[in-house]
Amino acid sequence: MIEFEYHNPTRIIFGRDAVPQIGPAARVYGKKALFIYGRQSIKKTGLYERVATSLRGAGLEVVEYPGVKANPILSHARAGVDLAKKEKVDIIVAVGGGSVIDEAKAIAAGAVTDTDIWEFFESRAKIQEALPIVTLLTICGSGSEMNNGMVLTNEEKQAKFGLRAPCLYPKVSILDPTVTFTVPPDQTAYGAVDAFSHVFEVYMAREDLDTPIQEGIMESLMKTVVTRAPQAVENPRNYTARADLMWASSLALCGITFSGAGPLALPCHMIEHALSALYDMAHGEGLAIVMPGWMRYMVDRKRGVLDRFAIKVFGAKSPEEGIEALEKWLVSINCPVRLSQAKIGEKEISRLVQNAYQLAEVWDLSDFYTPRVIEEILRLSL
Amino acid sequence: MIEFEYHNPTRIIFGRDAVPQIGPAARVYGKKALFIYGRQSIKKTGLYERVATSLRGAGLEVVEYPGVKANPILSHARAGVDLAKKEKVDIIVAVGGGSVIDEAKAIAAGAVTDTDIWEFFESRAKIQEALPIVTLLTICGSGSEMNNGMVLTNEEKQAKFGLRAPCLYPKVSILDPTVTFTVPPDQTAYGAVDAFSHVFEVYMAREDLDTPIQEGIMESLMKTVVTRAPQAVENPRNYTARADLMWASSLALCGITFSGAGPLALPCHMIEHALSALYDMAHGEGLAIVMPGWMRYMVDRKRGVLDRFAIKVFGAKSPEEGIEALEKWLVSINCPVRLSQAKIGEKEISRLVQNAYQLAEVWDLSDFYTPRVIEEILRLSL
Repeated sequence: MIEFEYHNPTRIIFGRDAVPQIGPAARVYGKKALFIYGRQSIKKTGLYERVATSLRGAGLEVVEYPGVKANPILSHARAGVDLAKKEKVDIIVAVGGGSVIDEAKAIAAGAVTDTDIWEFFESRAKIQEALPIVTLLTICGSGSEMNNGMVLTNEEKQAKFGLRAPCLYPKVSILDPTVTFTVPPDQTAYGAVDAFSHVFEVYMAREDLDTPIQEGIMESLMKTVVTRAPQAVENPRNYTARADLMWASSLALCGITFSGAGPLALPCHMIEHALSALYDMAHGEGLAIVMPGWMRYMVDRKRGVLDRFAIKVFGAKSPEEGIEALEKWLVSINCPVRLSQAKIGEKEISRLVQNAYQLAEVWDLSDFYTPRVIEEILRLSL
Repeated sequence: MIEFEYHNPTRIIFGRDAVPQIGPAARVYGKKALFIYGRQSIKKTGLYERVATSLRGAGLEVVEYPGVKANPILSHARAGVDLAKKEKVDIIVAVGGGSVIDEAKAIAAGAVTDTDIWEFFESRAKIQEALPIVTLLTICGSGSEMNNGMVLTNEEKQAKFGLRAPCLYPKVSILDPTVTFTVPPDQTAYGAVDAFSHVFEVYMAREDLDTPIQEGIMESLMKTVVTRAPQAVENPRNYTARADLMWASSLALCGITFSGAGPLALPCHMIEHALSALYDMAHGEGLAIVMPGWMRYMVDRKRGVLDRFAIKVFGAKSPEEGIEALEKWLVSINCPVRLSQAKIGEKEISRLVQNAYQLAEVWDLSDFYTPRVIEEILRLSL
């Protein structure tokens, strides 16, 4: 076990009737809220009304800021910072999936400083404080509702960067699995792949494999996602499947998996960020393509841990069978597993390598993940 | 999955060099600390000096309050409350095992109110606030360093009661496994049994067995304790064993095991409290006696979950084999598994039943745990 600090102060309110608690939960932190959400989906499902009623019913003044897109972009976040400052809001309320919550965090950090938020992402400035954040999760996967990380795309630079800061843990996150009944099958699958990858990458990155607590927790989370994702894809109103996917996604990146077993290294995410920065592909879709390629590259380099993964998570008999089983699972929930399925060919590789390597340097992964290694992994994903 | 709230704001600092961080960690919460510890052991090991140096080095004024005993008693806690009030301390710093941390919590709650602390334990008053608590753990088992519960014995009434309150989570807990190198084999074993029982009891209490996340986490924690306890008993300086026991103990009762899978029902603890209230036996010793008897009583009443436990935790083939394996493990770490080993005979049972049933009523377990059921479990433990 390696030394660690663990501190996750997010309050989770989980269950069928959790939505109306958002107003009272947010009211604790102030009087005026910036209510951030995405496009039209929460209006269609009626969730918008339920949230707005709860916020206003708790005595909150509400300023709306809709329009967050998947893979949230810097320009929209910057405009949100301006609005938060102009309206002098006390709290950020985010209703959505990882994209909405991530952008909410960027706005929460930007609203209390004169520093441009992209400075934080390129590690030229450090986030010291942020407005309090309250979230209501509508799509599982990113784990942003219970961690201190965020990802944003600078659309001018075509760079998708992520970072973490202690003050970015949401104060409260409302997790109602019934809210996700309306998430379409493809988004359900991509979210499940994202959650799976957060555990998978940490599991694979361990140097010391004699960490039975963390290993057991991670295997349990991965097995749960592998079992529940097809059930939720097949029957969107399966409460048990939705609930387990939701809680597994939150726990996957809350710190409990890597504390003592670390490091939190996410090389598949790093390569995927290049894909979704350049092609505006769904994050989970990109991960489904990168993970098997990464495993093929690692098959003789990390044989011990790949073998254990194959046995424990898929009941397979070898790392090679484990890769096959992973691909089969991804295909079963209708995810692509090759670049060619996303119409990305060999010619695109050098551009992808260049983009991913930028992030390798920022994330301090460039010692191992040289341009040549990234290229090889991408070739194995063609 | 059942609905739940999860909120565990304790900051954990874990590792070989964590001790000197106690001063700076405590200093964040005030200027004057009540430094609570037990008898002489931390002076013998030199830990006392290291802690005092760190506290004073961080600029804290320190008021000492030693003398906490195992199964901490009300009169000592009351005197601590008086001292905390008289000295107007800002923070409670607890250096010890579960007993010291539990008494520290009682003092922290008592120091900010005029209500006598025993009123809280008999549910006649509710804890609203408490002084900030910082802990340094020296004996693993209770999990008090990462939860909001405490147990205290009213020595006049011979009642050992426990309760939880949101404000009782320690702000920071320092977990340095090397500190536990000097814990003697019997205390090591009793602590391991306590941690094991916190998971075991929640695992057994589940109504809905389709909770794979929590089940996997609990199985992983129990298996870890079962493997590591004999290693630490045999070689007290085995860092890996000590570290895994320490982190497993903290996670065992931090909320992550029962959130969504609950309830947090601890019937073996309830019966054990009668044992250690009346005979001043170590808590883990009493649990080692009660758990197998409880399992024998439940063997046909909860066959499904006992069967899964037997298979997953001990690789046994039936609930009966699981009970045998549990007893064998307890014996391997030199714990008693029968009342007769503690020289408690049939004649004592009615007195024990009466004492345990009192607590069954306070803990709301008396519907199932009638005096007749408690008696039967104790007879199966003779």
